Amino acid sequence: MKIKVINPNTTWTMTEKIGAAARAVAAPGTEIVAVSPSMGPVSIEGFYDEAFAAIGVIDEVRKGEAEGCDGYVIACFGDPGLAAAREIARGPVVGIAEAAMHAASLIGNGFTIVSMLERSRATMEHLVHAYGMTHKCRNIRMTDLPVLELEEEGSNAQAIIIEECRRALTEDHADSVLLGCGGMSDLMALITREIGAPAIDGVSSGVKLVEALVSLGLGTSKRQGYAKPIAKPYTGQFAPFAPVA
Amino acid sequence: MKIKVINPNTTWTMTEKIGAAARAVAAPGTEIVAVSPSMGPVSIEGFYDEAFAAIGVIDEVRKGEAEGCDGYVIACFGDPGLAAAREIARGPVVGIAEAAMHAASLIGNGFTIVSMLERSRATMEHLVHAYGMTHKCRNIRMTDLPVLELEEEGSNAQAIIIEECRRALTEDHADSVLLGCGGMSDLMALITREIGAPAIDGVSSGVKLVEALVSLGLGTSKRQGYAKPIAKPYTGQFAPFAPVA
Amino acid sequence: MKIKVINPNTTWTMTEKIGAAARAVAAPGTEIVAVSPSMGPVSIEGFYDEAFAAIGVIDEVRKGEAEGCDGYVIACFGDPGLAAAREIARGPVVGIAEAAMHAASLIGNGFTIVSMLERSRATMEHLVHAYGMTHKCRNIRMTDLPVLELEEEGSNAQAIIIEECRRALTEDHADSVLLGCGGMSDLMALITREIGAPAIDGVSSGVKLVEALVSLGLGTSKRQGYAKPIAKPYTGQFAPFAPVA
Amino acid sequence: MKIKVINPNTTWTMTEKIGAAARAVAAPGTEIVAVSPSMGPVSIEGFYDEAFAAIGVIDEVRKGEAEGCDGYVIACFGDPGLAAAREIARGPVVGIAEAAMHAASLIGNGFTIVSMLERSRATMEHLVHAYGMTHKCRNIRMTDLPVLELEEEGSNAQAIIIEECRRALTEDHADSVLLGCGGMSDLMALITREIGAPAIDGVSSGVKLVEALVSLGLGTSKRQGYAKPIAKPYTGQFAPFAPVA
Amino acid sequence: MKIKVINPNTTWTMTEKIGAAARAVAAPGTEIVAVSPSMGPVSIEGFYDEAFAAIGVIDEVRKGEAEGCDGYVIACFGDPGLAAAREIARGPVVGIAEAAMHAASLIGNGFTIVSMLERSRATMEHLVHAYGMTHKCRNIRMTDLPVLELEEEGSNAQAIIIEECRRALTEDHADSVLLGCGGMSDLMALITREIGAPAIDGVSSGVKLVEALVSLGLGTSKRQGYAKPIAKPYTGQFAPFAPVA
Amino acid sequence: MKIKVINPNTTWTMTEKIGAAARAVAAPGTEIVAVSPSMGPVSIEGFYDEAFAAIGVIDEVRKGEAEGCDGYVIACFGDPGLAAAREIARGPVVGIAEAAMHAASLIGNGFTIVSMLERSRATMEHLVHAYGMTHKCRNIRMTDLPVLELEEEGSNAQAIIIEECRRALTEDHADSVLLGCGGMSDLMALITREIGAPAIDGVSSGVKLVEALVSLGLGTSKRQGYAKPIAKPYTGQFAPFAPVA
Repeated sequence: MKIKVINPNTTWTMTEKIGAAARAVAAPGTEIVAVSPSMGPVSIEGFYDEAFAAIGVIDEVRKGEAEGCDGYVIACFGDPGLAAAREIARGPVVGIAEAAMHAASLIGNGFTIVSMLERSRATMEHLVHAYGMTHKCRNIRMTDLPVLELEEEGSNAQAIIIEECRRALTEDHADSVLLGCGGMSDLMALITREIGAPAIDGVSSGVKLVEALVSLGLGTSKRQGYAKPIAKPYTGQFAPFAPVA
Repeated sequence: MKIKVINPNTTWTMTEKIGAAARAVAAPGTEIVAVSPSMGPVSIEGFYDEAFAAIGVIDEVRKGEAEGCDGYVIACFGDPGLAAAREIARGPVVGIAEAAMHAASLIGNGFTIVSMLERSRATMEHLVHAYGMTHKCRNIRMTDLPVLELEEEGSNAQAIIIEECRRALTEDHADSVLLGCGGMSDLMALITREIGAPAIDGVSSGVKLVEALVSLGLGTSKRQGYAKPIAKPYTGQFAPFAPVA
Repeated sequence: MKIKVINPNTTWTMTEKIGAAARAVAAPGTEIVAVSPSMGPVSIEGFYDEAFAAIGVIDEVRKGEAEGCDGYVIACFGDPGLAAAREIARGPVVGIAEAAMHAASLIGNGFTIVSMLERSRATMEHLVHAYGMTHKCRNIRMTDLPVLELEEEGSNAQAIIIEECRRALTEDHADSVLLGCGGMSDLMALITREIGAPAIDGVSSGVKLVEALVSLGLGTSKRQGYAKPIAKPYTGQFAPFAPVA
Repeated sequence: MKIKVINPNTTWTMTEKIGAAARAVAAPGTEIVAVSPSMGPVSIEGFYDEAFAAIGVIDEVRKGEAEGCDGYVIACFGDPGLAAAREIARGPVVGIAEAAMHAASLIGNGFTIVSMLERSRATMEHLVHAYGMTHKCRNIRMTDLPVLELEEEGSNAQAIIIEECRRALTEDHADSVLLGCGGMSDLMALITREIGAPAIDGVSSGVKLVEALVSLGLGTSKRQGYAKPIAKPYTGQFAPFAPVA
Repeated sequence: MKIKVINPNTTWTMTEKIGAAARAVAAPGTEIVAVSPSMGPVSIEGFYDEAFAAIGVIDEVRKGEAEGCDGYVIACFGDPGLAAAREIARGPVVGIAEAAMHAASLIGNGFTIVSMLERSRATMEHLVHAYGMTHKCRNIRMTDLPVLELEEEGSNAQAIIIEECRRALTEDHADSVLLGCGGMSDLMALITREIGAPAIDGVSSGVKLVEALVSLGLGTSKRQGYAKPIAKPYTGQFAPFAPVA
Repeated sequence: MKIKVINPNTTWTMTEKIGAAARAVAAPGTEIVAVSPSMGPVSIEGFYDEAFAAIGVIDEVRKGEAEGCDGYVIACFGDPGLAAAREIARGPVVGIAEAAMHAASLIGNGFTIVSMLERSRATMEHLVHAYGMTHKCRNIRMTDLPVLELEEEGSNAQAIIIEECRRALTEDHADSVLLGCGGMSDLMALITREIGAPAIDGVSSGVKLVEALVSLGLGTSKRQGYAKPIAKPYTGQFAPFAPVA
């Protein structure tokens, strides 16, 4: 099975970290292809960044279909481009926010999301509501650290995140914590150990959920909303993306 | 006041129709600039089309800020690019699905959406949920007509739509009907007359809501989720879209 | 266009303030008629006051229909009499709580209401739920000031309110603040400036929404729940209010 | 114990029927006082009628407090004046829509409301939502019969209602039916027998719930939203209703 | 009327306290039978305990049907076995969490639950959601006291609980407090007096609600989900519980 | 990895079918142990059956912990005993209703459940609500076939089920169908082929989700609600089930 893990931003140090997290949990027969799009933002911190990242995600899924990919993980905690990607993928496509929330739902009663810049809170609130997780989400805690701080040597980002995760357990009565950024995907084991409760990484969760769906023979449903895009012309720089019959 | 009405698809016959609907309701001092992006799908029928349309919308809002636009209407019933556009606009940005739902909420107890291709039902369900309109939305009725059918001479699309609007009143107990496509923006008066109840067009509703907000001195809040995008590099073909400080 | 702005309480200093706020935003061709009912409570602080205020509102709408009013704003943050008023108005009727919540929804992700006496919290919770704004409302902050304190010279009510608005932004992560009382309608500009984020006044919002709806040709739907009251006898002191055919 | 059952309309044949239903279930020591207000609509079919009926209800509760009443039932399926009445009552106040929905929740999984004029559907939708009964309410079925039809000799209203109740069981999968009008309070036993499932009358349910609360020593909470109205002047014809300290 | 009050745990000192609370409010003609099952946990603190307690509850309801019981109260704040018990009871079955929440809904706008071990929070969150009380429940406050602490001489559990109830009023803006454990059923009067607001005990509430339903002729609906269990074999130690035709 | 798949009823022909479905999708290194409890109902059709089945499930999980099982699937579409089982399992426990709903959420916008006896509708409504899937569930279609009909030779149950699945797509606009009974676990491939859209079996979905969670190192969270049961005595026939420290 071939799963493409798409880091929707173009910071390859993060892509490598994400790829490593994916490979660490992949089943023996699973090939992980970890990529960043050839275009778009170096980090995703808001709806504007997400809109461009979505095109990059779509581009990688388009290529992935030609490359024989069986499924996809969108490795940014805003799940950019998820619905669009589902229209063009035969197999399943899972976002890491979605993956982490579903995983948390299966092992506990309520989770808290711990994430980065305050401004991204709105994205997460939107996803929690859209995924029907309102009564599962105890809190959203933003550390107000920039995403790329996680890539810095000598940063005390880890310590700040761990402290916030601890508060999630004691103050929010959460029984798990979601690591709300693709760049945290190397921290799952460490934080789980530090706080004594599950710290859930969406990247590894996403890989395992895609593996599960593919093994079940379940691809994205082609009835209704995720049917193949209708063939039509696209103009200008997006002409190459026009759906064909 | 200068309001840019953006038809997110690139079919200019529809853009002209939308522009005419906007101008028909605009206040004396309001200048309507009706445009289509220079790139993207000729019609929007699903999430994939929407993702590309969102970039076109963003591009027009970026230009609009330089052109001194005071507000924006996104004239596609899936409201593509709305959240991203809000980050870069000082003034208000309103989508036509959002505008129509808010207008309906102020004049009645429950609306039905009447729209085009069955596959777009998912988009509308998502918006109804996201906007908190679940208990206001009586039904979503898809005629399964393609969007561009509305641009065809001799089409019986109007008759089919009117019939569906009638059913909304009698079968769904709706007290208004939302015209679920920018391409229906010329039908508001006709259908209202035919069915004897408000048929609400989002384009004209959107123009009046933007005028209202601008007159109130209310632009998009720059606290939290719709703050100006953070300056950062974008790579590849999106480099020109990189936010600057 | 003629819009009647009804202050549901009988304190005319407040009515004048409300009228001024309305006129300050009204379009050139809009005539604002600001009134208080000839009967009812001097301030509205609870459900009991609201029940009587509702009759006053109805009385003013009845007269307004005879006077050729095109629309109405109910200028108390509990929106008393709103549904009843809609049955007898041809044009739109908007309450200021409703108006402020809709305006906030169009320019941000989440608002906090800042209002007066603690006891009115229940009214606001009820309205937030009824209007489908649960996931938009970050908090309701009651200052526990009496409504008429706002009419007092030398009161420090403004300072208290501004402080609470500031907390809404930092503690609730709200991106706008709703001024939860008709008597705050002169504070919109001041508070917006002080807190650096939109402080939304329902009176001015209501006027602009009514103008918008009237310009769209949208009156209250006469299908279903807001149809004209059925002609029937009323007994006792309410006989003059009996609906006629 | 003395319970005042208030028929909010002024049709005394209905008041007598309601009083009889109340007395039929009252405990030995319970005195039922069944009244109609001295003012207001002869029947309640919409929000406008309800606004006036609310004042009549309030008037009767005010008198009731002086008369030593221990609790109140508001015998109209729109529960007019309920919140206001709670502010002035020491004891409990229960509306019949509320009572019927709570009773149904305790004996089954889902109910359907069967009621009269189509235009009142909006009231019931509002109450179902406000009371948190959305997931318990299977359907609202309006027979489109006027309320006073139930008082007519030779009417086939009963047959129509019974037929609709039967459909509630088979088509809506309801396990109980709520009789959605005070004027149906004599039909509980008959319809239960005819359809072979509980047909719940709010009047008798309300009496028993009030008895239960009074026996528990539970009156309306005087903390927060239902505290005693604040003393203040009322002007005009409502001056006699002004709250006193 | 004969009401069986089932303490689902096997600690008879608690059963006696519960029985006393039930008898204290029962109507003259009501016989209270207070029992504990002959098997199961000595206290109920979590889902595992509840699963076994449910069988004990069922056993007591089965016997109760043979003994001519008219209704049942399940006297543990997790309402264990409620749905199953309803299938085999002709009369009504009410859980004390359910009873307390319904009672609170009829006398106020919002309640806080005050209960025992932190680990039981999940059960209460689940019930609040399942009963549609999300917008009525202001908070759930766990004192982290073990259930049997309430049975200890010299414990300061009462003082801790009262303090938490006070906070519910001032910090949560609740207007009533639910005593979230059958073992608190003797504290209703004391705490109500101490905090000056209703402290609602589910045991006494449950008895009065069952009395009310029985007096109304309302038993558990035998249509749909609570129909009599289908006759079928049960194997092993549960063979004696097999439903018969 | 060792996964125990528990058919909560005691009909071993169904257990074998379920075991086969589980093995068909299990990863190479996964050992499937398919069992039925030694006690309990032969089929599960209602809440009463579920209560007993829950004890059987618990018993098998208890044994499973001693046997070194890494995770569990509860193979009845009412997910009996799920929360209790989670308290005693170190690894993950997944119910098949839960598993099917989560899988459907990841590949489509809305599902319909197709299941057996009408009386079980209430269980499924409860689960949809409890799992936060209300806006994902398009409909619940009960065929009114008894569960064991699926084990009968020559039954036309399959044809009836397939027909209902087809209606789910065309009438409910579902994009997938959930097979609402463990006894349908052999029909996933057949029905998917017949209807041309995903027919999701919870047994195989559950196995893959448990495999995924175990591979991620995620067991049931032992913080809060699913912590290990507190050591305490159990009396009577349940004494052997008493939790120990």
